[in-house]
Amino acid sequence: MPTNRHEHIHLLGAGLVGSLLGIYLAKKNYPVSIYERRPDFRKAGYAGGRSINLALSDRGLAGLAGVGLAEKVRQIGIAMYGRTMHDTKGNLAYQPYGVGEQCIYAVSRGKLNEFLLDEVEKYPNVKLHFDQRCTEVDLPTATFTLQHTQTQQQQHLKAEVLFGSDGAFSGLRSAIQKTDRCNYSQQYLAHGYKELTIPAKNGQHQLEKHTLHIWPRGGFMLIALPNLDGSFTCTLFFPFEGNPSFASLQTEQDVIHFFETYFADVIPLLPNFVEEFFTNPTSSLVTIRTQPWVFGSNVALIGDAAHAIVPFYGQGMNAGFEDCRILNQIIEQEQGNWATILPQYQTARQPNADAIAELALLNFVEMRDLVGKPEFLLRKKIEAKLHNLFPQQWIPLYTMVTFSAETPYSEALRIGKLQDQIMTRIMQQPNLTENWEQLDFEQIVRELESKK
Amino acid sequence: MPTNRHEHIHLLGAGLVGSLLGIYLAKKNYPVSIYERRPDFRKAGYAGGRSINLALSDRGLAGLAGVGLAEKVRQIGIAMYGRTMHDTKGNLAYQPYGVGEQCIYAVSRGKLNEFLLDEVEKYPNVKLHFDQRCTEVDLPTATFTLQHTQTQQQQHLKAEVLFGSDGAFSGLRSAIQKTDRCNYSQQYLAHGYKELTIPAKNGQHQLEKHTLHIWPRGGFMLIALPNLDGSFTCTLFFPFEGNPSFASLQTEQDVIHFFETYFADVIPLLPNFVEEFFTNPTSSLVTIRTQPWVFGSNVALIGDAAHAIVPFYGQGMNAGFEDCRILNQIIEQEQGNWATILPQYQTARQPNADAIAELALLNFVEMRDLVGKPEFLLRKKIEAKLHNLFPQQWIPLYTMVTFSAETPYSEALRIGKLQDQIMTRIMQQPNLTENWEQLDFEQIVRELESKK
Repeated sequence: MPTNRHEHIHLLGAGLVGSLLGIYLAKKNYPVSIYERRPDFRKAGYAGGRSINLALSDRGLAGLAGVGLAEKVRQIGIAMYGRTMHDTKGNLAYQPYGVGEQCIYAVSRGKLNEFLLDEVEKYPNVKLHFDQRCTEVDLPTATFTLQHTQTQQQQHLKAEVLFGSDGAFSGLRSAIQKTDRCNYSQQYLAHGYKELTIPAKNGQHQLEKHTLHIWPRGGFMLIALPNLDGSFTCTLFFPFEGNPSFASLQTEQDVIHFFETYFADVIPLLPNFVEEFFTNPTSSLVTIRTQPWVFGSNVALIGDAAHAIVPFYGQGMNAGFEDCRILNQIIEQEQGNWATILPQYQTARQPNADAIAELALLNFVEMRDLVGKPEFLLRKKIEAKLHNLFPQQWIPLYTMVTFSAETPYSEALRIGKLQDQIMTRIMQQPNLTENWEQLDFEQIVRELESKK
Repeated sequence: MPTNRHEHIHLLGAGLVGSLLGIYLAKKNYPVSIYERRPDFRKAGYAGGRSINLALSDRGLAGLAGVGLAEKVRQIGIAMYGRTMHDTKGNLAYQPYGVGEQCIYAVSRGKLNEFLLDEVEKYPNVKLHFDQRCTEVDLPTATFTLQHTQTQQQQHLKAEVLFGSDGAFSGLRSAIQKTDRCNYSQQYLAHGYKELTIPAKNGQHQLEKHTLHIWPRGGFMLIALPNLDGSFTCTLFFPFEGNPSFASLQTEQDVIHFFETYFADVIPLLPNFVEEFFTNPTSSLVTIRTQPWVFGSNVALIGDAAHAIVPFYGQGMNAGFEDCRILNQIIEQEQGNWATILPQYQTARQPNADAIAELALLNFVEMRDLVGKPEFLLRKKIEAKLHNLFPQQWIPLYTMVTFSAETPYSEALRIGKLQDQIMTRIMQQPNLTENWEQLDFEQIVRELESKK
């Protein structure tokens, strides 16, 4: 039933998704209180413990556009129109992500978070509280305990509606995990990552900046994303164990030898890579799946708290922003009745969260291995041609995931699997490199249509 | 390196596995302290929150035999030589579990736990503490906090070696789960269970007692295991949602109608089933997988804490007792060096825990559905014949799991899958009911051997 009440909404976590959700709710005139464990990043400096930059694409932009912020954020991002692969000899290959102006944006996680905090704080009905760690939740009553991380002072609060936007290691999710019949899994990759820096030179980028750089090496890879200040943040995705691995590189000489062998062309751009290698943390990569996301009629998880994924499709933040946009639609459609909003939110989002989790895992193999192979580039060319000839019928998977906010992730995954079946067969044809333009593209598209 | 020191060993949990592990360690002269959250069951009465009776089979008996207790436990069990299927018309079908004297034993969980507590307490180097809840663990230092459940008094202890034998909802495992790169999952079935009682009549069992009774009904089932006092404990395994389900049976009339439709032959034996249906709890069924089981050189999980499984192969306790027996072997082989014992223990047990978890899930379909079908009984007859003709080459899966302590679960699962491929093909032959004795049994066994 429709309601004119505006429940007081409590959010745990003022990260990217918590801040954006706060803006959506504030615009609907809900009183919103946001509690963040960390100090105010805008004063203290950003210490997220997560990657430094992110790729923002259409779903994230649609989430921002819903509160009128897409253009402003685009301006603090750097457009990347494709990926540039570096082989061990330093040869480059380029593959556009989409067509024309289609691009993804490299944005600084810290800068974007600060921007969203500034925006959410403009609403008089929003209160932001920092240094507040949630130490306990009682789900049936939606009461929770906060402890000030400096003063240790505790307060007990009762929410009318409670959201956990508290990230991959969500405390609210831990409480839900302990309830009967909660299905939950956390699965780590055998790979971790380490960030390294290519500094600016005279304020300029030392590599082409409108592209995502990849050094695909089969079992591991290095990537680089541009920052506004002219630097690049490189990330080495590398096994924890085995040879070579984080475990096997023990001495400075090991690290130098490893980089000389695999990433020789980037060494001149990485003045401190040996020191950084031993100083910067080695971080792990987790996929978290949990069900339910919703407890009772007034408690829910959102963003990474509900569905932390690995970063290889660049969709973690985008999926979280999409959660906010879809939740907002459901709030409108259900006229503010939380007892029907939250179950519908979960039904709408969970299959898509599951799909992007799977896509992100699959894309790791593509990025670290396949993109370095001529067959991969040929396949991308064939798919681009199919898309060019039949723009509605053959939309490459990457395009469905990245340059659409309308095709659900689950639908993209389903159609992507059908495309993969077809393309795998086509790629086995002899002499394709020479003959691919003679393929019967219409027949290929007809096959896909018949399988859809 | 071998060591003559006997570290003080702390066990969290004095359930079945904790008690047996205590006995194994006490026999090796380790000082052992066991902390149990619940009151002493022997005084307070058993309130496990788990099923009332269990099936003890060869692996469990081997675990008990390792400390000389198998015969004594056998005497408080009731031998079950096969399963008796009841169809909706009350017709019975019988299928032996093995050959000759091969049987599994119905034992009372409470009685067995009390027996093992009495046994472990006989050792002067063992201290048992009840009403002690572990509220916090610091893994790197193996320190933990205990709180007395009555007095709330706290104590902080440091273990030299710490085992979590604290069951499916292990607190020690929760601590390990929060460490980086711990893979963990908890998956609930869509079915739950409810226990009902067939009382004794003049001290006698009202159904044949040397068998496990099953009322297989496709999507759900009722089973009954005999108790020493002449009663049977029935368990209804039934979906939580749907029709029929726990959710759909709302009134007394619903329950009566349901039992009349599906379990008419057992109604006369269940004097209080309607009341029990509404009074007894509806419990859930979970599979828990976690990795690692071991933290550092001196902290480990054992039994359900490491690998809670669904009950359909009757192997939960048996797997836990096998953990104890194998751990004991490794302690001997490694001459008490825990830094090598614990990693080897995990390597030895984890693949087998994974295998029995999978087997237990598969067996649910067998028990609730397949056992009611003539093809299933025919298949079992063919496999029994194969086993009879080639006792070393064709050992039915159930026999490998239940009547062996030597074939690892993982090996049983592997061979069982090969047998299943072969038998699935054979079962498709026409007129098999009439012709099965003309099968080329030697060729079938040769096929299996070639695949092994």
